[in-house]
Amino acid sequence: MVSCVFPGSFDPVTKGHLDLISRAASLFDHVTVTVMANISKKGAIDPDSRVSLLRRACCRFSNVSVESWSGLLADYMREKNEKIVIRGLRNGTEFEHEMLSAAAGRLLNDGYEVVFLPSDPSLTGVSSSAVREIAAFGGDISAFVPESVTEEISALLSNKKQ
Amino acid sequence: MVSCVFPGSFDPVTKGHLDLISRAASLFDHVTVTVMANISKKGAIDPDSRVSLLRRACCRFSNVSVESWSGLLADYMREKNEKIVIRGLRNGTEFEHEMLSAAAGRLLNDGYEVVFLPSDPSLTGVSSSAVREIAAFGGDISAFVPESVTEEISALLSNKKQ
Amino acid sequence: MVSCVFPGSFDPVTKGHLDLISRAASLFDHVTVTVMANISKKGAIDPDSRVSLLRRACCRFSNVSVESWSGLLADYMREKNEKIVIRGLRNGTEFEHEMLSAAAGRLLNDGYEVVFLPSDPSLTGVSSSAVREIAAFGGDISAFVPESVTEEISALLSNKKQ
Amino acid sequence: MVSCVFPGSFDPVTKGHLDLISRAASLFDHVTVTVMANISKKGAIDPDSRVSLLRRACCRFSNVSVESWSGLLADYMREKNEKIVIRGLRNGTEFEHEMLSAAAGRLLNDGYEVVFLPSDPSLTGVSSSAVREIAAFGGDISAFVPESVTEEISALLSNKKQ
Amino acid sequence: MVSCVFPGSFDPVTKGHLDLISRAASLFDHVTVTVMANISKKGAIDPDSRVSLLRRACCRFSNVSVESWSGLLADYMREKNEKIVIRGLRNGTEFEHEMLSAAAGRLLNDGYEVVFLPSDPSLTGVSSSAVREIAAFGGDISAFVPESVTEEISALLSNKKQ
Amino acid sequence: MVSCVFPGSFDPVTKGHLDLISRAASLFDHVTVTVMANISKKGAIDPDSRVSLLRRACCRFSNVSVESWSGLLADYMREKNEKIVIRGLRNGTEFEHEMLSAAAGRLLNDGYEVVFLPSDPSLTGVSSSAVREIAAFGGDISAFVPESVTEEISALLSNKKQ
Repeated sequence: MVSCVFPGSFDPVTKGHLDLISRAASLFDHVTVTVMANISKKGAIDPDSRVSLLRRACCRFSNVSVESWSGLLADYMREKNEKIVIRGLRNGTEFEHEMLSAAAGRLLNDGYEVVFLPSDPSLTGVSSSAVREIAAFGGDISAFVPESVTEEISALLSNKKQ
Repeated sequence: MVSCVFPGSFDPVTKGHLDLISRAASLFDHVTVTVMANISKKGAIDPDSRVSLLRRACCRFSNVSVESWSGLLADYMREKNEKIVIRGLRNGTEFEHEMLSAAAGRLLNDGYEVVFLPSDPSLTGVSSSAVREIAAFGGDISAFVPESVTEEISALLSNKKQ
Repeated sequence: MVSCVFPGSFDPVTKGHLDLISRAASLFDHVTVTVMANISKKGAIDPDSRVSLLRRACCRFSNVSVESWSGLLADYMREKNEKIVIRGLRNGTEFEHEMLSAAAGRLLNDGYEVVFLPSDPSLTGVSSSAVREIAAFGGDISAFVPESVTEEISALLSNKKQ
Repeated sequence: MVSCVFPGSFDPVTKGHLDLISRAASLFDHVTVTVMANISKKGAIDPDSRVSLLRRACCRFSNVSVESWSGLLADYMREKNEKIVIRGLRNGTEFEHEMLSAAAGRLLNDGYEVVFLPSDPSLTGVSSSAVREIAAFGGDISAFVPESVTEEISALLSNKKQ
Repeated sequence: MVSCVFPGSFDPVTKGHLDLISRAASLFDHVTVTVMANISKKGAIDPDSRVSLLRRACCRFSNVSVESWSGLLADYMREKNEKIVIRGLRNGTEFEHEMLSAAAGRLLNDGYEVVFLPSDPSLTGVSSSAVREIAAFGGDISAFVPESVTEEISALLSNKKQ
Repeated sequence: MVSCVFPGSFDPVTKGHLDLISRAASLFDHVTVTVMANISKKGAIDPDSRVSLLRRACCRFSNVSVESWSGLLADYMREKNEKIVIRGLRNGTEFEHEMLSAAAGRLLNDGYEVVFLPSDPSLTGVSSSAVREIAAFGGDISAFVPESVTEEISALLSNKKQ
């Protein structure tokens, strides 16, 4: 069985994430989507809600599970005995950032590999930060987030503004 | 009539901005320079002062006007019925950042286009953040900002330090 | 009146070119599409045929004309008294290449500006070289070139193979 | 079973290729290494010899096979019913080139995915073109190619010079 | 005598820094490593401790000295009458950032040059920010920092957490 | 004494090269400019003429000498007992190309270092290939090449056309 881990902030999940999860789910036997709950950087949405949004958005995939982790990715991979990390890439800047992370991970743990999936070009404009910025100005996020969780994300982000 | 909008933080206006405004003013019938007053990111100089600095720096251009906007660029373009956004580019990192913004804007509003102007190579070192950093250390900003507003910018940024 | 020139090899015209022409035609009063017939680099399709393909592909735009030029772009711009060159950009590598060309042009003629339009992300995979490679292997180019000239391009490129 | 295809020119195979093959072989159930014999670009080493060099270099991997193909990658993937293409990446320029190829492939065949593996940073300087250039000047290629085929590659490339 | 300055945050010193210092020390007659104590950005480790860590890490180099500076690099270079700044580069994003800094410095002081040294590819994953992140999660930083100061850095960064 | 080597094709020497040579000559005790006469790629100007153009363009620098070499740079550095290679960089694409070359050189010879100098931003548009293209169309190359050799270069390149 070939499984993989798709780690990220998912603050919140977007159509870009869902596209990558869907493609990974069709390539690998199992995909674990892991919310990295970074202690120092407080997100716009709390980690538990991010997990529940992802679970709802991914419910149609039978071979996808959602978890969260507070710590280093390298420790997670070792503990879970996983060997493949999936990362989506939109452009050269993201690529170079991910290459540094992969090289750092390599120094911490020789046991896993980062593999990159190119983002769907038509979703290039989609990102969690764009969603947060649009929501902050009361804009329409429906082109950026999965349909099944649009309302819930709008509610979570508008609560934050108050 | 072909008009365009040049949006930005302009915190503060630089010689690089003025060069782009000057070139856009010679290419298009009218240029609106728009200070994007982002609520969440408080600038070094308040938005009203940024507008007044820009107005003074641009007073020699008869077809340039200066405005400010608190909100999404896509909403601004729709409300003003403008179709062209001008952005200056210095290097590949800026290009990739702007491509993501343009792609995000495309998802919010099909009615406008982002067009990029290459920065004058001799002004590559000029940026608002460089001005703020130099001013923070009491350095000489005269090579970075328009001559007509150098003193005013120095005063505004040194007030901030106190 | 604000007009622009869209120069290129167009060997052959693609859906990516047509998208840029269509968008430029909606932004500017007039667009001249100019086939740059580089003497040293013999193309897959002769320059006259490239012009005729472009004319057919662009026939629905009332404010677009097609020409060809053997020489430097800077000389063309001066002779035609045009001030704006349009270039489409797909990624950072293309951006950097175009920045060098624009800087070279600036040294040859101060009278024109290169402005960049971001390519439609969904057409990222489209290029003349991809069309030529696919045609060389007898593949289907219909996703890459304008519908109105698909057959003619296939014929021109398959003639070349023989 | 999750299998993948690693296509390339392999003109000749390098330590960089072998590292990627080794890592892919440990991640996936099966890896097919496919020499793309491009008709128009004659290589330094003929395709049959490239295949035989790869076979010898990969003989220790029980789940790796080596093939060759004259045609489009998209056609190969469809014919072999494979869904994953592996590509190694050393830097942003290579990444952007591969993103365009992946986007082109997407337009030709929705059925496969390109996934990228970061090159081992310590092998950044290794490439087939470096091997060919060093061999052309009679230099020592042993740091660049697999030990088991160093002599054979040297012989093939020095024959070519005569 | 040809001397150079290697400025940086060094928050904390890493194996990557030490590799660059070692190589610069073998190329130039003297290397001054200068901790830039940026007032606005409080580091994880105080500037005095960063200096003392660097001194211990560099004690084996007879032609390396360590200093600190609160202010603009251009002012430092002028005051010390130094003409060469050394910067290490890992990838294109860092390169473009440094090019902007060099261009800004050029506008402030014509008297010095920035020269870039490529990072050792095998140390690509090493950075001060990676060290801080790993330490924040209680990970092992020994692959990232010089052996002689590993314990002291661990102590300084864990004190910070409390 | 700290000396350096500035290798290149110099086909022909440009104002960009001369700026780098001038700056290197002010930083280092001695600069050797070395024409790399690549056997496989025949240049527009023969290597002997390139050397003589460089010698005339550099005659005002007392610490600059000009040589040529047919072979690998690594062999040249070893034979001349030189430790520093200087390369000029204009943008990220050139940087990434040079990083690969430096990494390849590192595998061939541990004894030398490649150090990069940022090109003068105002000379971004200047390159040997631009000179050759402009000359091919009978354009004015005087903004691109050193004044002392403009006529000689024009003559050499126009001879070639016939």
